[in-house]
Amino acid sequence: MLQRPMLAITMGDPAGVGPEIAFKALQDPKVYEDCIPVVVGESAALARAAEACGRQADLRLVASPKEAVGKPGAIELIDLGLLAGKPWAWGQVDPLCGDIAFRCVERAIQLALKNEVHAVVTGPLNKEAMNLAGHHYAGHTEIFAALTGTKQVGMLLTSPTLRVIHVTTHVAMRQACDLVTTERVLKTIRLARQAMEMLGIERPRIAVAGLNAHCSENGLFGDEEEKWIAPAVRLAQGEGILAEGPLPPDTVFVKAMGGQYDIVVAMYHDQGHIPLKLSGFKMDPATGAFTSVSGVNTTIGLPIIRTSVDHGTAFDKAGKGVANEESLKDAMRMAVVMARHKFSL
Amino acid sequence: MLQRPMLAITMGDPAGVGPEIAFKALQDPKVYEDCIPVVVGESAALARAAEACGRQADLRLVASPKEAVGKPGAIELIDLGLLAGKPWAWGQVDPLCGDIAFRCVERAIQLALKNEVHAVVTGPLNKEAMNLAGHHYAGHTEIFAALTGTKQVGMLLTSPTLRVIHVTTHVAMRQACDLVTTERVLKTIRLARQAMEMLGIERPRIAVAGLNAHCSENGLFGDEEEKWIAPAVRLAQGEGILAEGPLPPDTVFVKAMGGQYDIVVAMYHDQGHIPLKLSGFKMDPATGAFTSVSGVNTTIGLPIIRTSVDHGTAFDKAGKGVANEESLKDAMRMAVVMARHKFSL
Repeated sequence: MLQRPMLAITMGDPAGVGPEIAFKALQDPKVYEDCIPVVVGESAALARAAEACGRQADLRLVASPKEAVGKPGAIELIDLGLLAGKPWAWGQVDPLCGDIAFRCVERAIQLALKNEVHAVVTGPLNKEAMNLAGHHYAGHTEIFAALTGTKQVGMLLTSPTLRVIHVTTHVAMRQACDLVTTERVLKTIRLARQAMEMLGIERPRIAVAGLNAHCSENGLFGDEEEKWIAPAVRLAQGEGILAEGPLPPDTVFVKAMGGQYDIVVAMYHDQGHIPLKLSGFKMDPATGAFTSVSGVNTTIGLPIIRTSVDHGTAFDKAGKGVANEESLKDAMRMAVVMARHKFSL
Repeated sequence: MLQRPMLAITMGDPAGVGPEIAFKALQDPKVYEDCIPVVVGESAALARAAEACGRQADLRLVASPKEAVGKPGAIELIDLGLLAGKPWAWGQVDPLCGDIAFRCVERAIQLALKNEVHAVVTGPLNKEAMNLAGHHYAGHTEIFAALTGTKQVGMLLTSPTLRVIHVTTHVAMRQACDLVTTERVLKTIRLARQAMEMLGIERPRIAVAGLNAHCSENGLFGDEEEKWIAPAVRLAQGEGILAEGPLPPDTVFVKAMGGQYDIVVAMYHDQGHIPLKLSGFKMDPATGAFTSVSGVNTTIGLPIIRTSVDHGTAFDKAGKGVANEESLKDAMRMAVVMARHKFSL
């Protein structure tokens, strides 16, 4: 039998849907066929999330991943113990919860850097709560970069039908325009290749999107394509990378989903996130509930493997037992594929 | 029997796929059940397009729409006669072709302003060729605004599952950020309501997207939502419009496709075009050919009805007989719905 990758799963902000989706995902016996999941979180939050689902949480506290056995039934948990006995409420922006969300991530990164887990899978955190707690990061990606001492990282988003990596992410649109430079685009193209290799795709075909509508239509509105993006594509091609572009942003994703490319390099957050969510999310018109939230967020360029759910804390849904754990399971599967490839498991 | 709306169909740039899709669409006898189509174009281009499809064009030249009878078989054409005997080639940026594309639109607008046609349906033009010919417009929308003396127009895009209207379109991304003002957003929300009313949708539910990722996440990256967009939404609500927002751009389209909104107000070209094309376009992975190009572009705010195909001249496909006429037929259907509503036909 193959060795199962050991995954640290961070619970995310206690007040969001993170505890609930962790609880739900780890109730599925099939999950344990592929991996040994260890939650880094708070027993008080997991217990209350189970209650919200009309269940009881069977928690087995472990001091380190070494103690985890990965058997269906009990959820194995590294309990930070910061929440017990303190008041907190579903759906509230709370510095205590923001601090806990950060501490879970911090601990999981330490475990991965010490090779005590093969990969980290993160649940959603609330950036406002985390910032109120004094942890000033734009998001998970920036925490991982800082705590692992990594300078250049890329946000890879994947759905069952589309893969996108971003040149810029959590910055204002105006700043994103400034950050589209030849150096940054070239580095992201290289990260795109690295990401595909982490998934076992050799010689990936990489589409590079433009920044402006119609790629500026030969300079009629904008010049970033000619000034910054086209030179980056040429340099990447010179390194033997199968990069193509800049390509018109409004059709490049249709082409990628049509099998013409393995991955798209997007210039800004929504250029990549809009098509990704459309490709993986579905909503029930009758109820307005998401019936599918398929999508994984992976940070590329780190010394450790990190995948994540592709949705937020959904404070409006927290504590109601209605959250969908599909994206977390997708993220765990992606982490398993990458861990098997990296550690030859 | 209901009176059939009379449609002026502009052929677009002769060197692109416009002549071919016009020829193909008007070979379908069903088209004539709903409307009387009159092409404004060039007999030389239509004849060559038919040849490219291995057919012969049966053209019936008319001096004015009044002469058109709208029977399947012959294509009724107002022939500008600017191309006959001159050299031109498929797929080439050519000022002659750019001039013709412009003249077709100009004539069709005149016909609509004189009520000789109920609506104008436009084929694709090449902006570079048109600009080389001395007609300095960013696109069709701007021509229609100028030639009808209209100040505020909006670009409505529709697919079978999504409707989007744009605050800005053919400008550089940096300029789009500058153009997102309360006044402009409010006017576009009003145009969204007008557009839905043109389609017979009363009390439409209008989603207004943010400009920045996560709507700036409470000011962490950007401030246009708080400064400009939220006030516009409040003003629109004060006018009794069912507007909601600003909403995070990466999920608002999923929600609209899930039936929560009738239309989305997008802040810039690709914010609206990326989801629209994903919702209406499909590509065959084996051949890389578009198997579906469903989508209609409608200009809202004009004194006349104008719908359009939602794709470009596709110079790489021109003259090969492989272009897909689906979007043109969609645009004709949309024009018919709007004309019936406006003229009580």
